Amino acid sequence: MKVGFIGFGEVASNLSKWLKDEGVESYTSLENRSSKTKKLAEEYAANICPDNKTLAELSDILISAVTPAEAVNVAEEVGKYVKGIYVDLNNISPQTVRKALGNIENGKTVDAAIMGGIKKEGVKVQIIASGRCASQFAGLNKYGLNIKIVNHDPGKAKALKMLRSSYTKGVSALLLESLYSAYMMGLDKEFLENLERTECPGFKNSAISRVKSSAIHSQRKAQEMDEIINFMIEYGHIIMSKSTKEVFKDIYSKISHDKRYENYKELFESIK
Amino acid sequence: MKVGFIGFGEVASNLSKWLKDEGVESYTSLENRSSKTKKLAEEYAANICPDNKTLAELSDILISAVTPAEAVNVAEEVGKYVKGIYVDLNNISPQTVRKALGNIENGKTVDAAIMGGIKKEGVKVQIIASGRCASQFAGLNKYGLNIKIVNHDPGKAKALKMLRSSYTKGVSALLLESLYSAYMMGLDKEFLENLERTECPGFKNSAISRVKSSAIHSQRKAQEMDEIINFMIEYGHIIMSKSTKEVFKDIYSKISHDKRYENYKELFESIK
Repeated sequence: MKVGFIGFGEVASNLSKWLKDEGVESYTSLENRSSKTKKLAEEYAANICPDNKTLAELSDILISAVTPAEAVNVAEEVGKYVKGIYVDLNNISPQTVRKALGNIENGKTVDAAIMGGIKKEGVKVQIIASGRCASQFAGLNKYGLNIKIVNHDPGKAKALKMLRSSYTKGVSALLLESLYSAYMMGLDKEFLENLERTECPGFKNSAISRVKSSAIHSQRKAQEMDEIINFMIEYGHIIMSKSTKEVFKDIYSKISHDKRYENYKELFESIK
Repeated sequence: MKVGFIGFGEVASNLSKWLKDEGVESYTSLENRSSKTKKLAEEYAANICPDNKTLAELSDILISAVTPAEAVNVAEEVGKYVKGIYVDLNNISPQTVRKALGNIENGKTVDAAIMGGIKKEGVKVQIIASGRCASQFAGLNKYGLNIKIVNHDPGKAKALKMLRSSYTKGVSALLLESLYSAYMMGLDKEFLENLERTECPGFKNSAISRVKSSAIHSQRKAQEMDEIINFMIEYGHIIMSKSTKEVFKDIYSKISHDKRYENYKELFESIK
């Protein structure tokens, strides 16, 4: 079993490590890749192919894990060379993944999405998969991955990721707004403790981490909300999604985007 | 120890029962009360006083549990007769509770709020309390109540309840919007299951119950959001709160307000 990666950033290097621990060799090509990719490929001891064509021909499963802007281009580039199964694992919309997968001439394609942070300590993040060859891709569960099949329609995995993201980003925006008001009233501690009692164990720490992450990544999150809104508008209302985007835009306009906060109180002091 | 209730609806009758189980007698007056109140007072065997004046003079702790519109009026009516501690447990704003408590001439007052459903099976709902006599009120914890002191500023208990409500109602609105889109894409089951994995055990059932309750009580919830917005606007942003209100208004305009839904799918079919 040979697993190829187009792009070898954080996602590919983590998956490659998990596969290697189970005896599966990874392959990548450094053609058109950044120096960061080269360094990670060396560090994780991926086998290097001379070019993307060779990589596509050799891989039983070829996983595209590049930046959203590159996703369609790399599929166009390797489309006629792919011999095995082609998996798009990029952070793109259902429409865009269908466009990318349309370039794979053998038609053996999978739409996949990572549902959470790749680096969460001690937990292998779930990858959801849809598309014609989702079941074959899920065969990698024998080798240490955590893949769940949604169904066989390409685009459904990305759709599910966007739906999830619209909810979780909305919760972050809600927390940012209500916890800020609580802080201004001197009731932030009581607010978090009270919700922890009725919402979920661990609510308080998770809420604080969401608020900090919302602030630090506010620009990217506002952009991601734009994509979510473009997608969701076909299916339902986007009242909450539009406000979620506004909250991220608003916080970005108030803070320097690369500022790090030890806790939410520092953040709130800085935007007061 | 004599505990008096002005108003004997769902809240008072439940508290009265918990106190009685611990040997504390409840008192109420039927002056100006509805036939429903009379029935509940009989059913729960509360001792009946001839009028509110007698009730106020006799009670060691007098709890006001009436409709929001009556809260200030009853405090004005009994203000000069209160001998013990006066507790406002009504669903009103921090501003309004300060107005109500200002009528209690002996100044022995408590601002209190019920943080959750009074009738949750097997759990005694938490009552939070602020104001000068909050500690004395919390003495009822010896007799089966679950009172937590916030601090001694009147209005803080109502403020905390409103903050909590802005968050939990926001979550309901977010769920209504994102689950509806998921339903329209045929991904509602997967959406709920995926969030249950990463958000909280029990997420799925809680989400479905929130969506159904949002629809059934949409008119009341939209009105409550108005009060929350009026209050929060002094302290921070209300981007998410305004959208939350819009979602409740929107669902109310689409459905008959007293319709009951066995599950969210029936609801979504009816508004599709």
